[in-house]
Amino acid sequence: MTTQELVAQIKKKKSFLCIGLDVDLDKIPPHLLKEEDPVFAFNKAIIDATHHLCVSYKPNTAFYEAYGLKGWKSLEKTINYLNENYPGIFTIADAKRGDIGNTSTMYAKAFFEDLAFDSVTVAPYMGKDSVEPFLAFEDKHTIMLALTSNEGAFDFQTKQINDKELYKHVLETSKSWKNFENLMYVVGATKAEYFTEIRKIVPNSFLLVPGVGAQGGNLQDVCKYGLSENIGLLINSSRGIIYASNKTDFAEAAAKKALELQVQMADILS
Amino acid sequence: MTTQELVAQIKKKKSFLCIGLDVDLDKIPPHLLKEEDPVFAFNKAIIDATHHLCVSYKPNTAFYEAYGLKGWKSLEKTINYLNENYPGIFTIADAKRGDIGNTSTMYAKAFFEDLAFDSVTVAPYMGKDSVEPFLAFEDKHTIMLALTSNEGAFDFQTKQINDKELYKHVLETSKSWKNFENLMYVVGATKAEYFTEIRKIVPNSFLLVPGVGAQGGNLQDVCKYGLSENIGLLINSSRGIIYASNKTDFAEAAAKKALELQVQMADILS
Repeated sequence: MTTQELVAQIKKKKSFLCIGLDVDLDKIPPHLLKEEDPVFAFNKAIIDATHHLCVSYKPNTAFYEAYGLKGWKSLEKTINYLNENYPGIFTIADAKRGDIGNTSTMYAKAFFEDLAFDSVTVAPYMGKDSVEPFLAFEDKHTIMLALTSNEGAFDFQTKQINDKELYKHVLETSKSWKNFENLMYVVGATKAEYFTEIRKIVPNSFLLVPGVGAQGGNLQDVCKYGLSENIGLLINSSRGIIYASNKTDFAEAAAKKALELQVQMADILS
Repeated sequence: MTTQELVAQIKKKKSFLCIGLDVDLDKIPPHLLKEEDPVFAFNKAIIDATHHLCVSYKPNTAFYEAYGLKGWKSLEKTINYLNENYPGIFTIADAKRGDIGNTSTMYAKAFFEDLAFDSVTVAPYMGKDSVEPFLAFEDKHTIMLALTSNEGAFDFQTKQINDKELYKHVLETSKSWKNFENLMYVVGATKAEYFTEIRKIVPNSFLLVPGVGAQGGNLQDVCKYGLSENIGLLINSSRGIIYASNKTDFAEAAAKKALELQVQMADILS
């Protein structure tokens, strides 16, 4: 999917919502546990109930890998189901990968070819040659961690390098990388005041914003400082939507929560 | 496996060699491609031929994920084969994971429980609460990227924060984390001159050292500056050993290359 197609989807749906599919067997409705593949059954129901309210789904690979082969199978079924039934959806493998050149190419193949995701999240610590192999894939997007929503973000990301925080250095440096136009960034919603500074460095890039809802971030604040000319935001909510109920009405409850956010987004966009 | 047991293995085998199982179907002997699981067949032959010369194997997960479900199955078979047949081997899942707290716990479960690895590599960018969930597992080890062997290491890792490079800041900060004793570090062999400085910060920690051989690092230099009282080094070689031949003699050729390194290590240890 191209960036232009993503923007068109956002305008059409009046939504820049991304739903995180972080599926934990301890948290899904117990009646699903008797299904052959409870994780996929859960995802399918959530997707069918919410696809018109969001533009993106983001399975976090940790939750699938924790269940081993079975989990990887659930992930494969989920991405195939999305691509077959909802081709307008922008799919994100939240994998936070990164390794030396030839190895990053293998990760890119895993997520862009074997599993046909539109994008994958990566970590910046190993620098340019760990990220460029992902950027080489046409019409695929690489979403690099910049400023994350957790407490540990203050351990290194906000430390000063020559009077500039590490995350700003990461943003600036990445602008010179080959196929930079395929790069997006993760910026946590819990740090809304930072968006002004970030927009000075990457005015037009898409930002994937976790931390709205369960982690305490505020949608209005993020949009106030983070919206770009081309919208440029994907707001992620995971637990707040998918675990809205753990009874048989879980999918409708999720849709209700997603609708609440979509209505706010439509208002912001108008 | 405890650190003491790892050190005992090193002394017994007179080797601190780790063999990287980065298996690429384009590089393995073509005659293996007719096997039901060529990747596992390759690993099994390499392991059987070299297990007495090394103390550790390190599959890089990228190479398995690139083959999807089949690849994950090969990884599972490889770790199970190692644990069943060579329980004295220290196993490393080279996965470079890292995410917010509860998600890192899922990754830890994936590699420490579902796949019973002794250790996993992680990235430091997200800080303390992204790494501590791994450290919480008893007798398991977390190997954090400090200074990597690639060119991109100079993009961020060596940048100065208050007159101290980022990688040193990462090393120092991590010493205060809970269960620090379960932490090891990745330090590239291509930067042997840095080991003196690193040993001032973490005198006793184990360092996993990639980059000897194919990437140009020198074993003697690394040992000169990197050996600790308790040895404290695991030297990794991947391509230089496993792709020594791509004919039917590939396993013996790998053993020959591994022996060359083991002999040098025995000499250094004596």
